[in-house]
Amino acid sequence: MVKASGNRGGGSDEAGSDPDLLMVQSVEKAFRVLNAIGNSGTPCTLAEVTAKTQIGKSAAQRFMHTLAKLGYIERFQNTNSWVLSVKVLQLTNFYLNSNEFIRRTQPYLIHLSKETEETVNLTILEGTDIVFISRYPSRHVLATDVVIGTRMPAYCSAPGIAMLSRLNPEAAEDVINASSLKAFTQHTTCDRDALLQKIAVSAKRGYSTAFEEYFLGDISIASAIIDSTGAPVGAINVAVSRARYTPEEAEARFSGAVAAAAQAASSHRPPAAMMA
Amino acid sequence: MVKASGNRGGGSDEAGSDPDLLMVQSVEKAFRVLNAIGNSGTPCTLAEVTAKTQIGKSAAQRFMHTLAKLGYIERFQNTNSWVLSVKVLQLTNFYLNSNEFIRRTQPYLIHLSKETEETVNLTILEGTDIVFISRYPSRHVLATDVVIGTRMPAYCSAPGIAMLSRLNPEAAEDVINASSLKAFTQHTTCDRDALLQKIAVSAKRGYSTAFEEYFLGDISIASAIIDSTGAPVGAINVAVSRARYTPEEAEARFSGAVAAAAQAASSHRPPAAMMA
Repeated sequence: MVKASGNRGGGSDEAGSDPDLLMVQSVEKAFRVLNAIGNSGTPCTLAEVTAKTQIGKSAAQRFMHTLAKLGYIERFQNTNSWVLSVKVLQLTNFYLNSNEFIRRTQPYLIHLSKETEETVNLTILEGTDIVFISRYPSRHVLATDVVIGTRMPAYCSAPGIAMLSRLNPEAAEDVINASSLKAFTQHTTCDRDALLQKIAVSAKRGYSTAFEEYFLGDISIASAIIDSTGAPVGAINVAVSRARYTPEEAEARFSGAVAAAAQAASSHRPPAAMMA
Repeated sequence: MVKASGNRGGGSDEAGSDPDLLMVQSVEKAFRVLNAIGNSGTPCTLAEVTAKTQIGKSAAQRFMHTLAKLGYIERFQNTNSWVLSVKVLQLTNFYLNSNEFIRRTQPYLIHLSKETEETVNLTILEGTDIVFISRYPSRHVLATDVVIGTRMPAYCSAPGIAMLSRLNPEAAEDVINASSLKAFTQHTTCDRDALLQKIAVSAKRGYSTAFEEYFLGDISIASAIIDSTGAPVGAINVAVSRARYTPEEAEARFSGAVAAAAQAASSHRPPAAMMA
């Protein structure tokens, strides 16, 4: 995953042969402002934006003016506070519509959703995180915490472990080593060796489980979708509530269906055809 | 809805008291590049980006370099073509997670989804379009065309007509007048007077219908969610396939449930509390 570089040059927006000097600093700052407003969860004033971004007041004002003109932020109910506007969904819409992997996986997700009547997700691995890119919610529960684009650390999620189990062991270990291992609940596996063991078990079984490792009450069973070389390109999981199943019941009931769905979704095109 | 203004000043990135001069031109151009890459649906080369955006090659190159460093675009499989990266979902995730209207409407959508077992959507009106902001897909059909952030012209959608029917008649007429009325299918109502009539009927009935007006095979029944002043803040709709229902059957079967769900979702807080 690429990261924003710091501003090494003195002046802003200067081009040069050094890759960092090719960076348009005002664009980086505009995204910093946009993300600060989005990430805050509540409407943001100019003062809050400058505090969060460390960008001076007059520059921040110009970026906010620009983002508002472009339609990405808007005033919250005629106050002096700003929120993301619905236009930010457009890029997601472009991404989802052009994503051939989501499109070709959809029939398997729908089938699994009908078969289980539980929440079914498609995730991909990005760095040390999993990202939710498709979701069929259960009608049984209110699942308010996960929407498209939600990220979770791979090490404490069933899809994460399932995907890591299809990497070569060194690559999987690199991801674990790069993760900030911590306990989100009392059930989180965050010991390095225990995680490597968990990955090995998942590789053997063809699916992985996470019982309340990130959210209390959440049980998840996942299996990786692989390409023709055996490398993981995503994972399918079923998530159910601890209130309705014990871990053993959930595993017995859903692991076969999840593994079958992931296997069926794997038998298609190799990753070279991931985009049409 | 705010729109991007043109560059009236000569130099880029110059501040001034004129609002258009406050616009940071390089930010506007970066978003033009990002949207061109997203909108193309297939991986884009530099030459394609310059053709689509009318931005010179060396500037376009710098914007692409910057967007790649920031993580919003990435090379497609080590080629010289570029695609949106999964990071564009982050802003959507921020938007959806902080949106109190989506959160408080969710129980009604889930209830309606369970009750009907069909696709249930939440939309809002933006300008002359509706935008899909929440979605519970049916397990009956493959609905590949609509995802979060999808837009449709309000005049040829059931949620659009339902929301227009809760505006005052002049405001609804303004939206119709501002729309580019055209027939997407042989069933699209695109005559101005017929649309105003349709809006009046929807106001009376408390729900609206669209039978194959935008997609062939698509039947939709919608009802508006209103605030304490009676103004529309969104719409709930049920979408079913023409292959499984006649328009008459679908209307008889779902209009009551849709109107009830929208009414229940309306009885909460006024729009002043739309964001927590």
